[in-house]
Amino acid sequence: MEKRFKIILEYDGTGYHGWQRQAGDATVQEKVEDALSVLTGKAVTVSGSGRTDAGVHALAQVAHFSVETRLGQEDVQKALNGLLPPDIMVKSCSEADPAFHARKSAKKKTYSYYILNRPFRSALLRNHVWHIKRPLDLDAMNLAASRLAGTRDFKSFESTGSPRTSTVRTVFSASFAKADGAPGFFDPTAGLLAFTITADGFLRCMVRNIVGTLVEAGRGRLSPEDVPKILAARDRQKAGPAAPPQGLFLVEVVY
Amino acid sequence: MEKRFKIILEYDGTGYHGWQRQAGDATVQEKVEDALSVLTGKAVTVSGSGRTDAGVHALAQVAHFSVETRLGQEDVQKALNGLLPPDIMVKSCSEADPAFHARKSAKKKTYSYYILNRPFRSALLRNHVWHIKRPLDLDAMNLAASRLAGTRDFKSFESTGSPRTSTVRTVFSASFAKADGAPGFFDPTAGLLAFTITADGFLRCMVRNIVGTLVEAGRGRLSPEDVPKILAARDRQKAGPAAPPQGLFLVEVVY
Repeated sequence: MEKRFKIILEYDGTGYHGWQRQAGDATVQEKVEDALSVLTGKAVTVSGSGRTDAGVHALAQVAHFSVETRLGQEDVQKALNGLLPPDIMVKSCSEADPAFHARKSAKKKTYSYYILNRPFRSALLRNHVWHIKRPLDLDAMNLAASRLAGTRDFKSFESTGSPRTSTVRTVFSASFAKADGAPGFFDPTAGLLAFTITADGFLRCMVRNIVGTLVEAGRGRLSPEDVPKILAARDRQKAGPAAPPQGLFLVEVVY
Repeated sequence: MEKRFKIILEYDGTGYHGWQRQAGDATVQEKVEDALSVLTGKAVTVSGSGRTDAGVHALAQVAHFSVETRLGQEDVQKALNGLLPPDIMVKSCSEADPAFHARKSAKKKTYSYYILNRPFRSALLRNHVWHIKRPLDLDAMNLAASRLAGTRDFKSFESTGSPRTSTVRTVFSASFAKADGAPGFFDPTAGLLAFTITADGFLRCMVRNIVGTLVEAGRGRLSPEDVPKILAARDRQKAGPAAPPQGLFLVEVVY
């Protein structure tokens, strides 16, 4: 009997060329599909809620697949975790309605982006933050970020190479907060800033393009009032450069 | 003019065969000495506060060296951070008294050991925690840990291969605490326990041998009252197995 499963994945994207399977490069989708093929003896296609770029991480990427198996959801999870490499992990696995689709059924997504803002880099966080030496103006970044909320055309924040029917998205919230001083865990987080953004969907590289633009505001090169102008221009050239991939985490997909 | 410098290092031990230089294997000491040799054009010996084993990390390893240089402490730090690989970082650098010795001058050291106690492993924390699936009894572990405090003979917790004049050390504090839910940062810390121990010095593998023994208490295989008996036996065979290296962090050295 064919069953559809919904899985939630945590992965460290450092060693992967992103989510999506591609010839010649290790990807997360490929590793999950390979593990499922070993488990079931058949080729299995795994569909994610969306792509993550090379070097981008996930605390909770969601994916679905359909397989013929007598295994229950807990055993599928345990078997996958036994077969997957240590940098990919299935956090949960549940049987889903046959109509469930990880990408099409998604209502909201949340990403976090971590910036380490202090003179010296961190050895322990090197693959999980964007290190910026000079002090950023957190208030200016948050004022600029507030201009992104709402239903708007985000074409200026879309990287080329992925034409979409519509570039309008609704951003529910977007803000920076200090994230240092995590009690009891690594102190190398001193100077850590976390940007968190929730929207009904994201264009290609949208979060990295937004973060790169907001950092320009934090550096005083752009004023918060420039954000509406950038949006109105519908021109990628008007926005700031993309932030590097390693600070980005897919945090939640809501259905 | 020869100057003595004290440096504080953060490193991710995952890729290294420990602190101490050894033929054929990459070590942290070797990387720091190599960077200083490039900087000064001469062979430089760097002395650490103590060894860390292969796979063990440091938030604040302390080391000293003497070099002839016209550079000030800030420039030495910047130059070293430019020359060192991304998984080793100089957090601070200061000129020290010529009598300062990173190991001999140390008064106290603190180590932390992280255990991820939950059914499923973490992809993001894979190199920085000991994953234990079955629930541990935190109260039993803390009762057992409390029996370690004081000036005692820790020979039962010393790994072989490093004979010392005395195996007596003073443990000032040793306890476990829940470390999950670090606000604003990685949620894969759910189920994280942090063991922190401060002493005037540590024998070879002492922290890992202690953690391995306390986990036996947390598993109900050993009672807190067994700890004094293990200490009295002065026999490594009486204590539990060593905890694996990747959960261990050298956190502070006090002078």
